Amino acid sequence: MVCAASAREQGFDVAALTIDYGQRHRIEIDSARAIVGRLGIARHIVLPLDLRAFGGSALTDDIEVPKGGVGDDIPITYVPARNAMFLTLALGWAEVLGADAISIGVNALDYSGYPDCRPEFIAAWEAMAATATKAGVEGRRPRVLTPLIALTKAQIVGEARRLGLDPDWSWSCYDPTARAEPCGLCDSCRLRAKGVAEADALT
Amino acid sequence: MVCAASAREQGFDVAALTIDYGQRHRIEIDSARAIVGRLGIARHIVLPLDLRAFGGSALTDDIEVPKGGVGDDIPITYVPARNAMFLTLALGWAEVLGADAISIGVNALDYSGYPDCRPEFIAAWEAMAATATKAGVEGRRPRVLTPLIALTKAQIVGEARRLGLDPDWSWSCYDPTARAEPCGLCDSCRLRAKGVAEADALT
Repeated sequence: MVCAASAREQGFDVAALTIDYGQRHRIEIDSARAIVGRLGIARHIVLPLDLRAFGGSALTDDIEVPKGGVGDDIPITYVPARNAMFLTLALGWAEVLGADAISIGVNALDYSGYPDCRPEFIAAWEAMAATATKAGVEGRRPRVLTPLIALTKAQIVGEARRLGLDPDWSWSCYDPTARAEPCGLCDSCRLRAKGVAEADALT
Repeated sequence: MVCAASAREQGFDVAALTIDYGQRHRIEIDSARAIVGRLGIARHIVLPLDLRAFGGSALTDDIEVPKGGVGDDIPITYVPARNAMFLTLALGWAEVLGADAISIGVNALDYSGYPDCRPEFIAAWEAMAATATKAGVEGRRPRVLTPLIALTKAQIVGEARRLGLDPDWSWSCYDPTARAEPCGLCDSCRLRAKGVAEADALT
């Protein structure tokens, strides 16, 4: 949500890509659709990619989402190669659209230690993309924008508010309740609550 | 087919991944299933990824497949970022399986000039994969095997026969006829016919 509004503020004509990857919290796709509507983004593809076929993650397999707090190790909510898949799918659409940039909301500060949220991954992915495509070979490779990568969650909340976005429009929880409410205990809920509390304390 | 049999000859326990990407020649998926059966491969995932949502290629969009012969430019049968997508999807499954290697049948000799068939793409993709995954961060990244990359089509046909495979089990044509026969005129048919003819001349 913040990436999209930020890109538009910079003058980009935004197209939105959402991956329906069999995530436990597929309610986030409803939020994505609503945000696309609120921002008036004309092109939105919700692409099915059923990663439950591979499994191996608490987000796509029959594995419990940890609720004990954010630890030091890469947690079981890590989805193998997920962000590399997301960016590479976006690369294909970007080439068809002739897009100048791909923006992704990875964050390497208030995060769960996922390898595919780090600047070194983004840099290596960009180098790969330069060799992978016709556009890359012709020197028209899209840049990757990671406007949130070095921000705290509190700063992201602040940026959302500055852009006129209500943080409540977005969805973070990995393990929604049967009543479609955030669980409040998963890493994603904890990091979000910390960010909102810190942002509120600053204002 | 040759990659799979070659990997098994080297002692690998092979799992097969086929992407159902909305390709015009989805009959190749039937060939893949039959080959998996003939080789006795126990694990085979046919993963749907509908790239018709992006379009922009004669293989996934309402664009005619060129029939005039193999030229010098990257043809419209190029599917934007396709091999990067294939490898990156395989990377996710490889991590779940704990696989040592990913084998892909790219060929940079008797080919259509696709950027994502070249050794420099494979090298850049491997560097990206090392940063993208938990396994990569922990030093357990799978190697990429490209046993066909520097072979002529004739040599690939020879390798198939040496491994006890009938080239007719595989499917190459981009634009099958209504009777599910190869068109005989697309680049893929031409390169295949050239390879078989050259291999026959050698024996």
